Amino acid sequence: MASNFGKTIQVSTFGASHGYAIGGIVEGLPCGHTIDIDELKAFLKRRAPGQNQLTTQRKEADTPEFLAGIVDGMLSGSPLAFMIRNTSQHSSDYNNLRDIPRPSHADYTARMRYGDKVDMRGGGHFSGRITAPVVFAGAIAKQILAKQGIQIGAHILSIKNEYDENFDMRLSTKTLEYLRRQHYPVINQEKYEKFVNIVDAARMDQDSVGGKVECAIIGLKPGLGEPFFDSIESHLSSLLFSIPAVKSVAFGNDKISELFGSEANDCYYYQDALVKTTSNNNGGITGGISNGMPVVFTVGIKPTPSISKEQKTIDVKKHENTTLGVHGRHDPCIVFRATVVVEAMAALAMLDLVR
Amino acid sequence: MASNFGKTIQVSTFGASHGYAIGGIVEGLPCGHTIDIDELKAFLKRRAPGQNQLTTQRKEADTPEFLAGIVDGMLSGSPLAFMIRNTSQHSSDYNNLRDIPRPSHADYTARMRYGDKVDMRGGGHFSGRITAPVVFAGAIAKQILAKQGIQIGAHILSIKNEYDENFDMRLSTKTLEYLRRQHYPVINQEKYEKFVNIVDAARMDQDSVGGKVECAIIGLKPGLGEPFFDSIESHLSSLLFSIPAVKSVAFGNDKISELFGSEANDCYYYQDALVKTTSNNNGGITGGISNGMPVVFTVGIKPTPSISKEQKTIDVKKHENTTLGVHGRHDPCIVFRATVVVEAMAALAMLDLVR
Amino acid sequence: MASNFGKTIQVSTFGASHGYAIGGIVEGLPCGHTIDIDELKAFLKRRAPGQNQLTTQRKEADTPEFLAGIVDGMLSGSPLAFMIRNTSQHSSDYNNLRDIPRPSHADYTARMRYGDKVDMRGGGHFSGRITAPVVFAGAIAKQILAKQGIQIGAHILSIKNEYDENFDMRLSTKTLEYLRRQHYPVINQEKYEKFVNIVDAARMDQDSVGGKVECAIIGLKPGLGEPFFDSIESHLSSLLFSIPAVKSVAFGNDKISELFGSEANDCYYYQDALVKTTSNNNGGITGGISNGMPVVFTVGIKPTPSISKEQKTIDVKKHENTTLGVHGRHDPCIVFRATVVVEAMAALAMLDLVR
Amino acid sequence: MASNFGKTIQVSTFGASHGYAIGGIVEGLPCGHTIDIDELKAFLKRRAPGQNQLTTQRKEADTPEFLAGIVDGMLSGSPLAFMIRNTSQHSSDYNNLRDIPRPSHADYTARMRYGDKVDMRGGGHFSGRITAPVVFAGAIAKQILAKQGIQIGAHILSIKNEYDENFDMRLSTKTLEYLRRQHYPVINQEKYEKFVNIVDAARMDQDSVGGKVECAIIGLKPGLGEPFFDSIESHLSSLLFSIPAVKSVAFGNDKISELFGSEANDCYYYQDALVKTTSNNNGGITGGISNGMPVVFTVGIKPTPSISKEQKTIDVKKHENTTLGVHGRHDPCIVFRATVVVEAMAALAMLDLVR
Repeated sequence: MASNFGKTIQVSTFGASHGYAIGGIVEGLPCGHTIDIDELKAFLKRRAPGQNQLTTQRKEADTPEFLAGIVDGMLSGSPLAFMIRNTSQHSSDYNNLRDIPRPSHADYTARMRYGDKVDMRGGGHFSGRITAPVVFAGAIAKQILAKQGIQIGAHILSIKNEYDENFDMRLSTKTLEYLRRQHYPVINQEKYEKFVNIVDAARMDQDSVGGKVECAIIGLKPGLGEPFFDSIESHLSSLLFSIPAVKSVAFGNDKISELFGSEANDCYYYQDALVKTTSNNNGGITGGISNGMPVVFTVGIKPTPSISKEQKTIDVKKHENTTLGVHGRHDPCIVFRATVVVEAMAALAMLDLVR
Repeated sequence: MASNFGKTIQVSTFGASHGYAIGGIVEGLPCGHTIDIDELKAFLKRRAPGQNQLTTQRKEADTPEFLAGIVDGMLSGSPLAFMIRNTSQHSSDYNNLRDIPRPSHADYTARMRYGDKVDMRGGGHFSGRITAPVVFAGAIAKQILAKQGIQIGAHILSIKNEYDENFDMRLSTKTLEYLRRQHYPVINQEKYEKFVNIVDAARMDQDSVGGKVECAIIGLKPGLGEPFFDSIESHLSSLLFSIPAVKSVAFGNDKISELFGSEANDCYYYQDALVKTTSNNNGGITGGISNGMPVVFTVGIKPTPSISKEQKTIDVKKHENTTLGVHGRHDPCIVFRATVVVEAMAALAMLDLVR
Repeated sequence: MASNFGKTIQVSTFGASHGYAIGGIVEGLPCGHTIDIDELKAFLKRRAPGQNQLTTQRKEADTPEFLAGIVDGMLSGSPLAFMIRNTSQHSSDYNNLRDIPRPSHADYTARMRYGDKVDMRGGGHFSGRITAPVVFAGAIAKQILAKQGIQIGAHILSIKNEYDENFDMRLSTKTLEYLRRQHYPVINQEKYEKFVNIVDAARMDQDSVGGKVECAIIGLKPGLGEPFFDSIESHLSSLLFSIPAVKSVAFGNDKISELFGSEANDCYYYQDALVKTTSNNNGGITGGISNGMPVVFTVGIKPTPSISKEQKTIDVKKHENTTLGVHGRHDPCIVFRATVVVEAMAALAMLDLVR
Repeated sequence: MASNFGKTIQVSTFGASHGYAIGGIVEGLPCGHTIDIDELKAFLKRRAPGQNQLTTQRKEADTPEFLAGIVDGMLSGSPLAFMIRNTSQHSSDYNNLRDIPRPSHADYTARMRYGDKVDMRGGGHFSGRITAPVVFAGAIAKQILAKQGIQIGAHILSIKNEYDENFDMRLSTKTLEYLRRQHYPVINQEKYEKFVNIVDAARMDQDSVGGKVECAIIGLKPGLGEPFFDSIESHLSSLLFSIPAVKSVAFGNDKISELFGSEANDCYYYQDALVKTTSNNNGGITGGISNGMPVVFTVGIKPTPSISKEQKTIDVKKHENTTLGVHGRHDPCIVFRATVVVEAMAALAMLDLVR
């Protein structure tokens, strides 16, 4: 299995749900940048499991440990390596899954790809737990970008078919700050209650739900990216679709294909010598290149495939049809914890682009 | 500007709307494969302009010429190089665009990225015309995949807010064959008429419209792809978002984020010793890896940004606000010609994956 | 077959000895740079065949044609594509080589790698002729580097066991200028005569000879390159060993492994506020990174494997031992024409590094 | 700083001489392969310091710890991560080196590349200590290759100007086995004594020496590699030149440029239905592709730059000339410990090629 990406910076991650540790290496970071450790930990905590009834009951301290690349709290220029020890593993929960793949999970496809020796306890390297190193690396990237005036923020746009406002209505650095103060960020607080109720109802019914996350990147200069194969959309989507459970990505107005050109076009005008557009239906990107407006995109996340409810599946050893209810610990909805992963991926993609 | 991608195969394209030629190089193709030239030309023709009122009036013969990598109609193993001479260029149409960027087009961003010496006549290297080499390369890829039992087909899912059926209802190799016989493929023929009317009305109104293309890949073995950064979704989306005007990509059921887990999950069962799923909401991919079901995805395309209707924009030389109506030849809707580009990109992504 | 390299710039080449054309694409070049076409042609001519008794009698006009990426003599920012039509091909010369591989040539290994359909007429894509696109791309790179104050020059260090002086004795920009005025550059003119005599004698004897080329890059700033896997030595050697017939590469003093540390070390001192070293045994690179002194390296080139003299080989079809004398046109020594290829590769490696 | 390479497998390393730990990630390894831990440790020990008077007195247990990618001693398919804790660090030894760069070491160039915040204690990420993760990864690669019948072995070809026999005289799998049983392998045992004496004399004189390592890869099938930019020579040399202190690489007969073609050519013949060559002057590679004969190459290593003897250098802070004798612990000759690093790099390069 390969697990790396990047040109300017290179990120490699390792670990499995039930291995010794998870972690990663980030190469190409600027020498001399001071890391804000508290902010890093706070960012990691937004992804950490076991915090309330919305998430899996697996509790992990998720204490990161630096292995290399940092001296006296400052990036030393050489590859940054870090790890998080795994502590809470209930491998026995997964014993019966070895030969009975969970519907819509990676169990079956991993076996077809890597053979039956592949470690799939807890989802193995496919586990959502592997997003922790991504969030760690993304937290560093976010801090470096912030120094360059680039802000990144995301919010829960929808849970199932209940939608919050989208960014278009009030996108600003203030909104991002407002979101940053929330553990599971929403634009309208009354929505949070509704979202929680939907998830709770699904959980009680041994079921799960999905939703959408919307993310904005403010402060990008115009003229970043490449046409065609290295467009910002290509670059970002490639990382966003590597987040487990993400099934769709839309840039700008996600109804743009239903508009007339005269409605969809973002018209240029000068405001105090700066070039702005009257709308932002293109999400800050035209021709694959940033135009100076906020880069905005929406990510669609499917319902958690692991549900306790009994479902049809197969026994690959006995070659026969069977059923499965997935017990053990799992999130009834991963959208809450996914917002920070989306931010992290966006930060890594941008750092790879701007440096 | 970079213009290449791929690991197993490598594709590089070149050319500008108003340069001498467009073309490309494809490396890593199998030695000894015989190319069906007629099929190649027919595929190219589906993208070619000037065929009816739905597309730009620019007429290009688009006759491809092989430069290397083919001997007696057979791939020789060495890099395949080809070109298409540009013949019909009205550069003067674009003279006034040099300093007055078209709203939502690449004129402004290209200038910010590459400086004011960048060649933007006719959209330069950002022109939709640069998809011709992609279609050429994709046609070759499609033929090689077909020999391995992998079929690829796309159809116009929607024009503006008028929708045809989606594949889910009757996806089969027969449907793909049926679509292959159409120049601009739709599932229900009565939709074609409606689509044409919508485009015509927009054109008469000096406006443009967008739409969606849906594509299916049938015959992929289970176990292709990588988790995380090289997931099939990452790989495909990266190429799809490099098609000019594509703003969204969704795999499987594009409403999956609004379903319960129990509805969304694709349950496994054995059918004649083969593993199938009861539904295909995941679009043939779980954990980033193919599960043997058809890979299905939808691509959202924005309305053509070049419209004759007068719009606000800026004069970057005079640093003042102005207006612009884009005259010259342009498509009132590029969805028709884009279906074949989507198929080509899918073919290239798959060939990079399976070999 | 893959045929590309590069991170900052990307170079892809195509063509076969007996195909329609040879050529390439260079991506990532700076928009707005004016190409000196005469200088480009003069550079290409140094590699061209058929000029005297030292080289193959194949005559190729080698007239380059731009396909894209240049407007009014200026790089337009988009991929630069070019080709050179093949005109003089004696394919029948090679008919008997299909099944009887030339000793030490690529005939046998290409067949094992790509199968018996691979095009090996005239060496196919393995032919020295494929260095022409590299020289073309390198000529452009050299011109761009020259604008940044970086000069590159090479000379014939040895033919067989006859050696000219090496750069150590008189390396300066003046020496490079002096070399630039020679078609086949040597440091001491009396050596040229000796070199020619050695090659002529070998040719008369139906044999061939090899030699060494030494190259210097002057004007590199200190601090370029990366430690370990992307060291300047790694980067340069990777390209130099892609030149057909190159079998060794040595940086700095090629006897450095036989010195004491106290002799080998290049000691720093200030000269007019600039950091210099008392010697240059490390060839301008320590820790994989440039130190500001000239980057100097030597490339060992084997004797041309194609010789008329009868040699043992096999018939792969009949599965039996046989003998072969390679008739047709070939260079009795390729070192003369290789100097410009070494310069071109050095220029491409540096442009990939400095931008 | 970037520190990674590879296409089929990807290797990333981290660590600094005086950081918390050194280690790495290897991606793309085959799922289900069982690791021989004892063999791994024995391989690592050949590189370990502090074993006798030939090497630095720094003592490191170099106990490797697996972090991920291994379950019950078997590769699990997901990225293999490992680390080695640093234990013996005398950072104070290096305090005065911060501003007074050691001649021919990376101190000055690293500062110019990464700024004065770069961690250069003990050579930082440039330290020879960073070859430990490479040796770890190479040990795994060697074991996987051995299962495919590919053997790799190296020996000390020379120390200063004292030369052992080269492989040409008796290359066989027996010779490799014989070498494998030696801690610091030589072909003729009487040479070992001479090598030790040369190093000892240099050490007593506060000086250092270099030498050459020769390496052979036996069992490669014909037809591996690519022409041009991905030739086996390009691929191998790129890794070999990333070993600190390596300044030259030669494939096959390192005097091949001084031979006639009729002497240099390796003539094919059938031996029991297998294709062999009468000589191996090309070191098993023609046209960049393996021909089935052993791949043989020589690596030139410069004398250790850190010597106690007083040498000229500069004080970059005071901007003045000064002198420096490097005290602290360092190897008077690194050739002994480098043989295993060369083998490791060869193994990694081959694994990247054959899978």
